[in-house]
Amino acid sequence: MAVLADAEIKQALTGLKGWNRNGSAIQRVFEFPDFKAAMQFVNKVADAAEQANHHPDIDIRYNKVTTALVSHDAGGVTQRDVQMAERINQIGR
Amino acid sequence: MAVLADAEIKQALTGLKGWNRNGSAIQRVFEFPDFKAAMQFVNKVADAAEQANHHPDIDIRYNKVTTALVSHDAGGVTQRDVQMAERINQIGR
Repeated sequence: MAVLADAEIKQALTGLKGWNRNGSAIQRVFEFPDFKAAMQFVNKVADAAEQANHHPDIDIRYNKVTTALVSHDAGGVTQRDVQMAERINQIGR
Repeated sequence: MAVLADAEIKQALTGLKGWNRNGSAIQRVFEFPDFKAAMQFVNKVADAAEQANHHPDIDIRYNKVTTALVSHDAGGVTQRDVQMAERINQIGR
């Protein structure tokens, strides 16, 4: 899958609430009432990642979860990352 | 709970297989066969964290999980962190 150009990533981000660029990846921070709610989100994201066979980086800081996406095999952000970000937004709002 | 002195942390780390110092925290990287096994570990750690009401930072990178511990309220590594690190080692070997 082709790596998206900067302008294409910028365009995609306009449709991805809460996501922004971080180096070679795109990421979003989700905040929850507590750790338990954060872990419920993480497990739903994990299930979606397994289904799509595309796994975000996930950082858990008590009630805050950062998800980051990049297609390491392609060497940048691809449409797969955009699709997974959309899926994660469906899970986390 | 009292913050451990550098020498005390160093001493504690000798009994904590795989853990080392990272800035103000102590951390260990665990590696698993795949993402699914990594998530099983993360969920067991999450349960132990809720039980102890002491929550490690958890970073998931496909089959690699980094757990990091510091007592933010105390401003450094305390015996609570050492105890949770021991518990995490029981879970992850």
